[in-house]
Amino acid sequence: MTAVLVPLLAALWVFSPSSFATTSNGSGEINALPIPVKYTTGSKAACLADSFSIQFDSDVPADLSAASDRVLERIKKSQHTYLTTTSGTEFFPSLKCESEVTELRLSLSSDHSLSIFDLAIKPVEERKGLEDYTLTIPTSGAATATASTALGLFRAITTFENLVFKIDFSLPSSPGVAEGGDTAYLPFTPYHIDDAPAFHWRSILLDTSRHFFAKQSLFKLLDTMSAVKLNVFHWHITDSQSWPLALNELPELAAKGAYTPRKTYSEQDVAEIIQFAGERGIDVVMEIDTPGHTTVIGNSHPDMIACNTHKPWTGWANEPPAGQLRFADPAVTAFTSRIFSAAIKLTKSAYFGTGGDELNEQCMDADQPTQRVLKANGWTLNDALKNFTAETHGTLLSAKRTPMVWQEMVLAHGDLELDKNTIVDVWISSADVGAVLDKGFRLVHASSDYFYLDCGQGGWITENVGSNSWCDPFKAWTRMYSFNPYTNVTAVQRPLVLGGQASLWCEQTDETNFETVMWPRAAAVAELWWSGGNADGTFPRSAVDALPRMHDMRYRLVEKGVRAEPLQPEWCAVHPGRCVLGG
Amino acid sequence: MTAVLVPLLAALWVFSPSSFATTSNGSGEINALPIPVKYTTGSKAACLADSFSIQFDSDVPADLSAASDRVLERIKKSQHTYLTTTSGTEFFPSLKCESEVTELRLSLSSDHSLSIFDLAIKPVEERKGLEDYTLTIPTSGAATATASTALGLFRAITTFENLVFKIDFSLPSSPGVAEGGDTAYLPFTPYHIDDAPAFHWRSILLDTSRHFFAKQSLFKLLDTMSAVKLNVFHWHITDSQSWPLALNELPELAAKGAYTPRKTYSEQDVAEIIQFAGERGIDVVMEIDTPGHTTVIGNSHPDMIACNTHKPWTGWANEPPAGQLRFADPAVTAFTSRIFSAAIKLTKSAYFGTGGDELNEQCMDADQPTQRVLKANGWTLNDALKNFTAETHGTLLSAKRTPMVWQEMVLAHGDLELDKNTIVDVWISSADVGAVLDKGFRLVHASSDYFYLDCGQGGWITENVGSNSWCDPFKAWTRMYSFNPYTNVTAVQRPLVLGGQASLWCEQTDETNFETVMWPRAAAVAELWWSGGNADGTFPRSAVDALPRMHDMRYRLVEKGVRAEPLQPEWCAVHPGRCVLGG
Repeated sequence: MTAVLVPLLAALWVFSPSSFATTSNGSGEINALPIPVKYTTGSKAACLADSFSIQFDSDVPADLSAASDRVLERIKKSQHTYLTTTSGTEFFPSLKCESEVTELRLSLSSDHSLSIFDLAIKPVEERKGLEDYTLTIPTSGAATATASTALGLFRAITTFENLVFKIDFSLPSSPGVAEGGDTAYLPFTPYHIDDAPAFHWRSILLDTSRHFFAKQSLFKLLDTMSAVKLNVFHWHITDSQSWPLALNELPELAAKGAYTPRKTYSEQDVAEIIQFAGERGIDVVMEIDTPGHTTVIGNSHPDMIACNTHKPWTGWANEPPAGQLRFADPAVTAFTSRIFSAAIKLTKSAYFGTGGDELNEQCMDADQPTQRVLKANGWTLNDALKNFTAETHGTLLSAKRTPMVWQEMVLAHGDLELDKNTIVDVWISSADVGAVLDKGFRLVHASSDYFYLDCGQGGWITENVGSNSWCDPFKAWTRMYSFNPYTNVTAVQRPLVLGGQASLWCEQTDETNFETVMWPRAAAVAELWWSGGNADGTFPRSAVDALPRMHDMRYRLVEKGVRAEPLQPEWCAVHPGRCVLGG
Repeated sequence: MTAVLVPLLAALWVFSPSSFATTSNGSGEINALPIPVKYTTGSKAACLADSFSIQFDSDVPADLSAASDRVLERIKKSQHTYLTTTSGTEFFPSLKCESEVTELRLSLSSDHSLSIFDLAIKPVEERKGLEDYTLTIPTSGAATATASTALGLFRAITTFENLVFKIDFSLPSSPGVAEGGDTAYLPFTPYHIDDAPAFHWRSILLDTSRHFFAKQSLFKLLDTMSAVKLNVFHWHITDSQSWPLALNELPELAAKGAYTPRKTYSEQDVAEIIQFAGERGIDVVMEIDTPGHTTVIGNSHPDMIACNTHKPWTGWANEPPAGQLRFADPAVTAFTSRIFSAAIKLTKSAYFGTGGDELNEQCMDADQPTQRVLKANGWTLNDALKNFTAETHGTLLSAKRTPMVWQEMVLAHGDLELDKNTIVDVWISSADVGAVLDKGFRLVHASSDYFYLDCGQGGWITENVGSNSWCDPFKAWTRMYSFNPYTNVTAVQRPLVLGGQASLWCEQTDETNFETVMWPRAAAVAELWWSGGNADGTFPRSAVDALPRMHDMRYRLVEKGVRAEPLQPEWCAVHPGRCVLGG
């Protein structure tokens, strides 16, 4: 095994992209999204040799080898052209290849033998360095990628794939997106890339309860996440509306709670999804939201649910159907622990989500069984919640899993004495970040004012006059991209910011439209958390600079069969810099 | 030919749906969308006989016969179940069919021999009565539909199709949308329906310039429009960004103006699209927007375009690229007439859209060639526009086509002395309706504050801080449905209100997402303009009452392969009445 670190003068390195002059496509001289943290590029287009291959200097884990096969196959199949009106012919004055990249050689610079999967599920505090890589692509000859782990090499080949374009030398130039071509090339060789993620928690949340998503849809989501180096899938698998998780130990939950027998995830399905994700560098963090968001448990265990489908739901829940666990009841607490215990056996992540959002107090106050328990124990509702949480979280901690909760669990119910490693998702507002940090918890930025993909679809609770989305307006990618992770964060608190998440709650989303709602906006979120801020550490980066990369990625995704929505008229995609304010 | 008018007691008729008790699915006892204007239903489910067929009492036009074949095929193929947690089994206490509808017999009550196509392209003032039909479906035996035209019978079989559900008697009930079944039935026989549209202009606008839509996508759109009885396709075929219309007489426009050679509509394509639409009861009104929204003409005729792709575009156009026809120039006027002349030869409609929106005065004020013409003639810009309009509209009028324009042509440029038959699309605001009517013009409601499908997708002009849609917020279907066509309309002006339109401008929409953006919202618009107001003439109808119909249509569309977005969690679709405010 040989480390192939290319010697470079430090002065040549450019911290992207602030100090770069823009080129013909306006993106700086690199098209990869997320943009590498450190890179230089040249000015010569180099074709991929017909015999181009990906080689390894040593034995590598099977999942890296498989990933490399997939990249090769996709490069071969792709017809993606450079987004200018000349479709990339501007790089080939003689309209033919003048030099060739013969292979991509991958080297592990350490004796790290872990698979991509093994590395993806490492606890977040151990992730530093695991995704780092260098990638050198000459104008002619062998390209090389070096990393200390298989995960780093996986990130390297992903970057490589996204630098490759196709060209058809016989094609006339046109003002739109060309039909594609057969010749693969890289426009700006030589490339020297030294990359590492700024944050180690780069997440997508999908809710599979309001609507069911078949396994194949999740595979496609995970594949797309890996194309932009997202590394956590926050799987909000159950909620009040349906219970698709078919647990062998508690089969009644899905038998009576899934929308239909087909709309379930068997334990085998869950294993396949986790395997598929892990092989693509993604940690699957399953969430079973409790004690709220659990009405559907009442289908099989009506005695465990307070105000079960109460009419009206208004006032008794944030959305229909009303109903939540009688968490003061020791039997309910024990049952919840059994659910968690059964579920975590299926997962490989160090983390498990327990929810804790939107507890409805009116429901508990009116619930006689709950009130009897409180009275008998001299408890407040918060006392009961603390007890419930201690026991159910205890189940996770015993199994060496760290809980992940929504912000109310540290801000809304007094001190629940959560384990200090608990990860808190901030969702209500980015203004709540400081309060969470002041309590010493690590957090993931997932606030609805920036990162909710479902905002702006109109109010879905039907009223005769129409209504707006509760978190209106729609969050454009530029809004998401403009987020500063360190606003109201002290220097000493910065390490508590693990990263961020784009969340897709599925009241108005199912398999028909989820890709449109998610992509390419989530790609902007991926860049925010991978690439971090400007060279001087400030946020945000320029969305105007990122726009050509976003267009490029969007057309790449569409070509892969992902229904990513267009950002602008096609005219804009091929006229870089012309569809910006004042442009 | 025999008129099969079923005798009915007037007292049995119900003017939908205000006086109806709701049933298990909360929709009143009829599921068709748009809801028929007048109907009664029974309480017995009747299956379709295995030998079920659609028969005609006489020779009928070929396009009606073909439409009936399509309906039969779709009924056979459909797996759509009734949206309750019991999936329709509630209609069959014995879990088997107890009576059968043997056939649907269609009768023309007049000797009207025109095809659906011939009828669809009749001028709007001649459309009254052409779509009317009666439909009677007994619990057992032959169903009958009667109309005075093939178009009326086409509407009747469309209604029939949307009343049919499938059931699988072996299926357990479930809380979600069932997997479908093989047995076709109608839940509430006997049905007696006497239907007629309230408005005769029920339109969708699609912009095929910001992004190109292949012919097959337009076919699918037209098919879906016909399923909800929309009758006008406003085809905004060109704009500043691309010119996909390949005119044989002026080939340079598309040769240099289409995004790519494939992204064009040949004259044959246009003919096929118009034919496909006509056979489905849809009039294709083509629009070539002038004198603004024409930058792309500068690709082939740079001398005809003022401020052609001016940098910055800001201030010089409402969106990039800047550039519009030098309409003061007699050569440009003559050229525009040639374009219209070539285009109208391709169309069959009585109408042709000439645009007239968003003229940029700064561009013309700064354009030396334009200023020279104005000075030479002693003209104001409005004088020049009047001259341009008189000539170009004259071309249409000579060819017996009525112009359709955007509201600025009657409100923003003085009196342009338009032909009094000109149809005006109100788009800027519904508040402008009165001003248009006061000038005596007929109008189509297409205002952005109610009917723009593209609002709320976020600002697409890229800025570093993110921005909102100019016409934020997103228009939920309930907002669209809440529109009152007669607000600020005097009794005497009411006949000037032809109907309405849902418009989809495609800056952020292409083939990947257009179905999601359009459906099922446009189905609510279809009902608004077909079904009209409540029995007492007031608007709006209740969206809460319409919700089950909207869910039903949405799932029908998805089953047909249309990516209509979900309105609510699936739980809500099968729990009618539970996901409304206070429900």
